[in-house]
Amino acid sequence: MEDLEGGVDFLADERKKAKFDVEAMKIFWAGSQHKFQVADRMARLVASDPVFKKDDRVRLERKELFKGTLRKAAHAWKRIVELRLSEEEASQLRFFVDEPAYTDLHWGMFIPAIKGQGTEEQQRKWLPLAYRMQIIGCYAQTELGHGSNVQGLETTATFDSETDEFVINSPTLTSSKWWPGGLGKISTHAVVYARLMIDGKEHGVHGFIVQLRSLDDHLPLPGITVGDIGMKFGSGAYNTMDNGVLQFDHVRIPRDQMLMRVLQVTREGKVVQSDVPRQLIYGTMVYVRQTIVYDASRALSKAVCIATRYSAVRRQFGSQNGGRETQVIDYKTQQNRLFPLLASAYAFRIVGDWLNWLYRDVTERLQANDFSTLPEAHACTAGLKSLTTSFTADAIEECRKLCGGHGYLCSSGLPELFAVYVPACTYEGDNVVLLLQVARILMKTVSQLGSGKQPVGTIAYMGRAENLMQSQCSVKKAEDWLNPATVLEVFEARSLRMSVACAKNLSQFSNPEEGFLELSADLVGASVAHCQLIVVSKFIEKLQQDIPGEGVRPNAIALVDAFNYTDHFLGSVLGRYDGNVYPKLYEEAWKDPLNDSVIPDGFHEYVRPLLKRQVRTSRL
Amino acid sequence: MEDLEGGVDFLADERKKAKFDVEAMKIFWAGSQHKFQVADRMARLVASDPVFKKDDRVRLERKELFKGTLRKAAHAWKRIVELRLSEEEASQLRFFVDEPAYTDLHWGMFIPAIKGQGTEEQQRKWLPLAYRMQIIGCYAQTELGHGSNVQGLETTATFDSETDEFVINSPTLTSSKWWPGGLGKISTHAVVYARLMIDGKEHGVHGFIVQLRSLDDHLPLPGITVGDIGMKFGSGAYNTMDNGVLQFDHVRIPRDQMLMRVLQVTREGKVVQSDVPRQLIYGTMVYVRQTIVYDASRALSKAVCIATRYSAVRRQFGSQNGGRETQVIDYKTQQNRLFPLLASAYAFRIVGDWLNWLYRDVTERLQANDFSTLPEAHACTAGLKSLTTSFTADAIEECRKLCGGHGYLCSSGLPELFAVYVPACTYEGDNVVLLLQVARILMKTVSQLGSGKQPVGTIAYMGRAENLMQSQCSVKKAEDWLNPATVLEVFEARSLRMSVACAKNLSQFSNPEEGFLELSADLVGASVAHCQLIVVSKFIEKLQQDIPGEGVRPNAIALVDAFNYTDHFLGSVLGRYDGNVYPKLYEEAWKDPLNDSVIPDGFHEYVRPLLKRQVRTSRL
Repeated sequence: MEDLEGGVDFLADERKKAKFDVEAMKIFWAGSQHKFQVADRMARLVASDPVFKKDDRVRLERKELFKGTLRKAAHAWKRIVELRLSEEEASQLRFFVDEPAYTDLHWGMFIPAIKGQGTEEQQRKWLPLAYRMQIIGCYAQTELGHGSNVQGLETTATFDSETDEFVINSPTLTSSKWWPGGLGKISTHAVVYARLMIDGKEHGVHGFIVQLRSLDDHLPLPGITVGDIGMKFGSGAYNTMDNGVLQFDHVRIPRDQMLMRVLQVTREGKVVQSDVPRQLIYGTMVYVRQTIVYDASRALSKAVCIATRYSAVRRQFGSQNGGRETQVIDYKTQQNRLFPLLASAYAFRIVGDWLNWLYRDVTERLQANDFSTLPEAHACTAGLKSLTTSFTADAIEECRKLCGGHGYLCSSGLPELFAVYVPACTYEGDNVVLLLQVARILMKTVSQLGSGKQPVGTIAYMGRAENLMQSQCSVKKAEDWLNPATVLEVFEARSLRMSVACAKNLSQFSNPEEGFLELSADLVGASVAHCQLIVVSKFIEKLQQDIPGEGVRPNAIALVDAFNYTDHFLGSVLGRYDGNVYPKLYEEAWKDPLNDSVIPDGFHEYVRPLLKRQVRTSRL
Repeated sequence: MEDLEGGVDFLADERKKAKFDVEAMKIFWAGSQHKFQVADRMARLVASDPVFKKDDRVRLERKELFKGTLRKAAHAWKRIVELRLSEEEASQLRFFVDEPAYTDLHWGMFIPAIKGQGTEEQQRKWLPLAYRMQIIGCYAQTELGHGSNVQGLETTATFDSETDEFVINSPTLTSSKWWPGGLGKISTHAVVYARLMIDGKEHGVHGFIVQLRSLDDHLPLPGITVGDIGMKFGSGAYNTMDNGVLQFDHVRIPRDQMLMRVLQVTREGKVVQSDVPRQLIYGTMVYVRQTIVYDASRALSKAVCIATRYSAVRRQFGSQNGGRETQVIDYKTQQNRLFPLLASAYAFRIVGDWLNWLYRDVTERLQANDFSTLPEAHACTAGLKSLTTSFTADAIEECRKLCGGHGYLCSSGLPELFAVYVPACTYEGDNVVLLLQVARILMKTVSQLGSGKQPVGTIAYMGRAENLMQSQCSVKKAEDWLNPATVLEVFEARSLRMSVACAKNLSQFSNPEEGFLELSADLVGASVAHCQLIVVSKFIEKLQQDIPGEGVRPNAIALVDAFNYTDHFLGSVLGRYDGNVYPKLYEEAWKDPLNDSVIPDGFHEYVRPLLKRQVRTSRL
């Protein structure tokens, strides 16, 4: 997106070097001509609206910051209503506002939970209220003492057959709900996950719609203690979100507020399994994690765009005969660190697209009662969520370091991008826990090799085990690595061999679960290798099919231009489209509140007495 | 340091498992009985003084935060004066206050620069003023356009023989001094690095003492533009420091304010080299970088202490028959990630000690005009600075992830620790640039193998090249890796072979400098391998000499207790000595300003209208 304020493009020379069609690549990156147009329009809408200004947010203390977020969320909703935006447009608009807000959980978790787990009747009752934002909801699953182990949640929902109600209770301190976004100060309702108890018997963890705050005065309802859990990593960043703590003291809700699509509790307190397959839950997880992979490519591309442009602007060393110094992007050490990240941003984008196809495929099959591909699809999305988010978190920090000292300034945009991104490694499944899930399916596959059962999907390559276990790497000289078929085979052989080695070690244990725990570090390694293979294979496939061109250095700036990000969205002085970095860094510095006065607050009390040697007598 | 507020030690069982003498290890960690006592006393002094409270700093906006830092710095100085603390005690006290402040640069850079580069006369004039804090100084080297390339600095100091003055000037925007700590709002003086110009001829970059602000009213002197450069990574963290921007418009200073220990400018404008060896500068760099390695071990040990204690408190999964869940520290995946970091904290501590010895050795030799070990010592400290700081930055973030979701809360202490630590990868030499310096000496050494010249110091192992190039790894089974001699030989062989491979590729280039640039990524790899070998060898040496004991898991908590850190210094709810994590996390949450009121600021303007469906009519 061309942002040329003053009209001078300091990166024009770089842009001229491009050896591919940038406009076509923009369409590719967006996904289609239509998607490109929507994204482009929404990004410009947000960028041109002063209410959505975000460059001051790292300087605000928490209350001001949060108030600003409420303002932006309301303004976004107002624009959505006024302009009668479609769901797609609204979602893009919220994305480009680029500020975590309670609305993310309302639209992204509360509504989908009701859609996925509520009966048709429940959906008819609650969804219209939620769609119109007459109620605002959040998703209250994790507790102070339990995150990954959902089955260990302590909150209880006890059926009272006399009153036909559930009693929601927090029996311990560690059972306090902890982390849910939007919970702290805003949500009126929550889907609360609790242990279902009937007549002293436990029936697993289920979701319940619980009203938290009065719709009249917004005060917490009786029996409910709720608040914000405090500051998180970074300035700005996720502190715009009211992640909350919530305790129930025997709060009663009507029986029909248990989400009963899969499991029903009757008036008499009987538990009835519905005919809806439980596997549907896995379908939803595939969906959510696919969006996380997609988000990884967007966060990574943002960081890479900043680091690439600044590397072309920044010059250091190498001046000869009084000429200009060398552009940092021309150093091999810089290229060696930066370009693989640039390639990965594209690779993750392609994997995200493919996962989207996978999700649709799985959904169609589920509707036809075909569950055969589900375990593999579930494992594959879990693994790719883990791989892409861990990689992206590290890569953002690497991009910050690639910007040298100036990357440490908030005005570079990278500190906030890192701080706001890293939770992706923990939420929706801790990345190590997810990799261990992948390892289970890999071990199962290896154990079934030779049984005649052919592995499917992304694990199909294991069917060629005999071949891959023996194959010799055909690489003789460096250039041989440029052959995609070679790269693919190497990744396949590596992944398979790591899995086979684990399986072999596992078979030494009489108790397989014990073995799994003991070997878990190696199993995680095997899972990572498998997931890397998936990324590599999807990337190679796409490059060979649809994307012509060669080489990176001359194309670097054009490749990040193709993301079509506005300067507003990038939020980085170093990543400016026009490359006019230094004057803008200088300008930005003076906006710090410390520069409001020449003599800083506290100077007269705490510095002057030192300079005047009055320390012994003055009270400090 | 035992912090048992309520008297209950939730980690008592863990502490009982220790298989070594924790008290003896505390002395080892501190360096000596004396050092332990000083550190222990100063840490308690700080921890018990309410002025040094720091748990609210992540919640403060910049001005308040900065004012608080000024207060702490003044209070520290007051206590130092009142208690007549020795230099060693004062430095420890400032360390345990644990808040970057302008005083760090005054004591750590301004004074050492005058000591190292000033003549005896200059030292007699300026040091007493600085020691009494009648002037406050900073170190103004880096510029907006130049960091690593010091020779590229643009600020000029032009000799005016008529007035016997230097004219300090910032000819371009990019020549603005940028980053110096303490410069933004506080320093009255600076050592300014500028290009010495006499009669139109340039004489390299030198240091000049320049007064910046009036000692009467603290206003910037004529010709000086100075301010703060704005927010940096994280909340709290380095935002307590007034990193500054500084421009000179032909500012005049007397000739005797050029630091002239090495190079003098006479009244007539003649440049005279003194008989003080220029190599002294390298001695100073060895010193500064040695302290950075030492700091790395402290930052890493802090993060590891938090993650280790919390991993023993946190339980997740693995509950059998209604029993308690498994301590997270008992999972192999956790151990596999955490324990190498714990070992590294100790290893870096040992390397820091050794570097301290190296510095003293080099200094003695310099005084005897023996420069023979200097290049190797210089390269070695540069490389170890790079290796330990990069590793520590990554390790702090890894420790944060090892604390799961709660590590993302500021109350875990880890976000601030990360944000405040990462600049160490950039300052005092960018880590990649430093590794390339190491590579130069490695390549030189390889090229001289067989010439009869024996490599010395940490490169001595290359003298056994013939042997190491051919040696076969003796490891047959996993246990063989427990043999220290094997580990050492493997690291030696690996490092040597990587260097030899680089040298071989380098020899293909007709222009060696071109080859060096082209192969720089591989050269960085060879340097890292060499530096890892140094760490491993010093660690093994020390373990075999002085530290008995075995195994880590039962000793884990005791090993982090041996750091003897107060809860104040750790600044982490997750890392509390008593392990009483959950109630304190809960307590901490309520302190957030957002919890000051039940209904948040902005609710009535920006949320209520949505809930009441007044969006179309209300002005947002």
